[in-house]
Amino acid sequence: MTDQSEDRVDKVEDLFDTLPPNKRQHLYKILYGKTPEELALDCPGRTKELASNHGFDCQAYQFRAQEESTRAPRIVRVGLIQNSIAIATTEPVEQQRNAIIDKVRPMFQAAAEAGVNIVGLQECWTMPFAFCTRERLPWSEFAEDARTGPTVQFCIQMAKKYHMVVICPILERDCVRGDVIWNTATVVNDDGTVLGIQRKNHIPRVGDFNESTYYGEGNIGHPVFHTKYGRIGVNICYGRHHPLNWLMQQLNGAEIVFNPSATITGLSEPLWAIEARNAAIANSYFTCAINRVGVEMYPNAFTSGDGKAAHRDMGMFYGSSYMAAPDGSRTPGLSRERDGLLIVALDLNLCRQVVDKWGFRMTQRLEHYAKKLTAASSPDYQPQLVKAREEGTSSSREESKQMQNGCGHDCSRVSVDCSRFH
Amino acid sequence: MTDQSEDRVDKVEDLFDTLPPNKRQHLYKILYGKTPEELALDCPGRTKELASNHGFDCQAYQFRAQEESTRAPRIVRVGLIQNSIAIATTEPVEQQRNAIIDKVRPMFQAAAEAGVNIVGLQECWTMPFAFCTRERLPWSEFAEDARTGPTVQFCIQMAKKYHMVVICPILERDCVRGDVIWNTATVVNDDGTVLGIQRKNHIPRVGDFNESTYYGEGNIGHPVFHTKYGRIGVNICYGRHHPLNWLMQQLNGAEIVFNPSATITGLSEPLWAIEARNAAIANSYFTCAINRVGVEMYPNAFTSGDGKAAHRDMGMFYGSSYMAAPDGSRTPGLSRERDGLLIVALDLNLCRQVVDKWGFRMTQRLEHYAKKLTAASSPDYQPQLVKAREEGTSSSREESKQMQNGCGHDCSRVSVDCSRFH
Repeated sequence: MTDQSEDRVDKVEDLFDTLPPNKRQHLYKILYGKTPEELALDCPGRTKELASNHGFDCQAYQFRAQEESTRAPRIVRVGLIQNSIAIATTEPVEQQRNAIIDKVRPMFQAAAEAGVNIVGLQECWTMPFAFCTRERLPWSEFAEDARTGPTVQFCIQMAKKYHMVVICPILERDCVRGDVIWNTATVVNDDGTVLGIQRKNHIPRVGDFNESTYYGEGNIGHPVFHTKYGRIGVNICYGRHHPLNWLMQQLNGAEIVFNPSATITGLSEPLWAIEARNAAIANSYFTCAINRVGVEMYPNAFTSGDGKAAHRDMGMFYGSSYMAAPDGSRTPGLSRERDGLLIVALDLNLCRQVVDKWGFRMTQRLEHYAKKLTAASSPDYQPQLVKAREEGTSSSREESKQMQNGCGHDCSRVSVDCSRFH
Repeated sequence: MTDQSEDRVDKVEDLFDTLPPNKRQHLYKILYGKTPEELALDCPGRTKELASNHGFDCQAYQFRAQEESTRAPRIVRVGLIQNSIAIATTEPVEQQRNAIIDKVRPMFQAAAEAGVNIVGLQECWTMPFAFCTRERLPWSEFAEDARTGPTVQFCIQMAKKYHMVVICPILERDCVRGDVIWNTATVVNDDGTVLGIQRKNHIPRVGDFNESTYYGEGNIGHPVFHTKYGRIGVNICYGRHHPLNWLMQQLNGAEIVFNPSATITGLSEPLWAIEARNAAIANSYFTCAINRVGVEMYPNAFTSGDGKAAHRDMGMFYGSSYMAAPDGSRTPGLSRERDGLLIVALDLNLCRQVVDKWGFRMTQRLEHYAKKLTAASSPDYQPQLVKAREEGTSSSREESKQMQNGCGHDCSRVSVDCSRFH
């Protein structure tokens, strides 16, 4: 396969930008809610220079809110960092980690030059996403203590130096409690203290992502971290597919929720622009979708449960990190292929303004659904299924039986007409 | 303002289609999961002829599933109909309704020619969406009995004639129970019997959509209708903003959920492509988003709570009806301005295939969230909020107090730097 530049897409927005101005504007308004020009934010020369010198994508936007007479604007700057690994996965673990840290350090500096208050990094950002191999060693050696580990220590150093809050996703080893591994994000406060941690609440068993080989479902709940730059939640990777996970962050008061991820083309790319943005809309908060970039090669070939030959890579992590606002608008995405820093100035007041405008919380009927879900979570729940009375021998008893059989569908009644596909 | 054709967008996909073939293909793959060519379905000449003669947009697509050895494909054809009103809102109520029905009749015929099994219509499809006026008469006269009303009777006639299931959204008057008005969809089975009804579960109070002037939250729950063409749910309009509403349809076994809507540019257009599609992904079922088209003028001017002068229209309903599959792919949308019929052949087997592939149901931790929501629905729920210990006088007691005050945010700590927006 030739990978000629004309057949590659660095950003989907590059395609929008080839349209004539009036068409391009319509496209952005309809698809993204706002044009890049409406969201434009000036970026300091020093930030641009660092991006240029170190070869990472750098974009800056802003989400405004209406002026209010009793609240001042609550403007914070968020920086999202996406990165590839830095050296071969066959190198010693500590060298691999340090090489990534060294590469990302100037991105922190660039964020600081742009006045960023909160930095969010991708899932397990200082290691290859090696869970596809199903090998224990050496990958489990990347796991570290959530407060004292080397990745966290680097983020503490950055937090102190630049007075930033840092969301630092790591592979965690809980040495105090049985050496268990978790997929975790440490939240470092702007003074360098550890505010707390969040653990991945939903663990994928999808294709090469059967991460349950390494760690289980998080036991921390849905904490929201009260920082001076707003109330922050973390929803790690596969948790973005679960609306209830996002909802709990809303109910705990989040204004910004970070979604550190690792996901590849072919599997999830058409879902990527949908899910974190839907969460921003449904929950009236800002969301930050962060995905790694690049292809990671492993020393030993592995199969993927798809009948294909063993291979040494998992696929291409497509970056495309973006931020979505509670009003449904979103920023363009970062590069699909290169490291990147997305800087977004946002006014937290927009959250409550959208709560008032759209009324989703007032109308969400939480008590009603709490009862419904309690009933539905019972193993003998009877779905609310309506069947025609006159259809054959169907009776409520038969219907119950069908439900207990776990199918609930009388397949013989479904029309089968394959000839219609052509 | 001039409305020159070059400045109008009939479909957002028309903009995609102006790109060179390789760029266009990338755009569709990344944004929609599939190209129109991959989804292409031949449409019979008679259907195209009807569309051409009656001036409505007509598009046909298909969603395939993998072959299985123990289940035959379960292929059904769905038809979504979007329409404008047909004559002035000042005409007698019955004439208005009949004019719409007369206009939509050939669309049913075109659907039948294409072998459609299930037709879904837009919210309150035989009347103008007059709730913005806040006037009772004459608009409440459009309300009809959910089984014997004239709109339902027409759909029963269509169901019998063409052996179709019809989702018929109406303004309902429950004459048996106190003459109460509801926003309802009647589900007519393929033999013309009424299978049951669904009522709008979440009522908007947004801009011109304060529909609580006319009707309250539905009291039917989340029934799923077992037809021979699959298990069908209905989530009316504003209910699409509520993930729990979609979730209950999943838990009751839905394979296709219809979202009959009425929504306008300026308010919701950037959200439109996100929400029903996210629901398809999160719930592993097909979703059908159906929106009306056109601008509806009323005899009396009304204000909209936005400080602007009284006016006689609510805005432009932007159509753009589409269908999304559980794998995250979607069809292109119908016209933003014209009546339209979207025909989609789909294999219901895809639902369970996606359930197995992505595992969202296996990993959803329903029991966990049932408990969480039960706690969170209490008026004195204490959000899971983590604060720095060393910050001033903060103690758990103070934190609780803040929560009870309903804010939970110590605003004095938030940095305010307006100069950063420029």
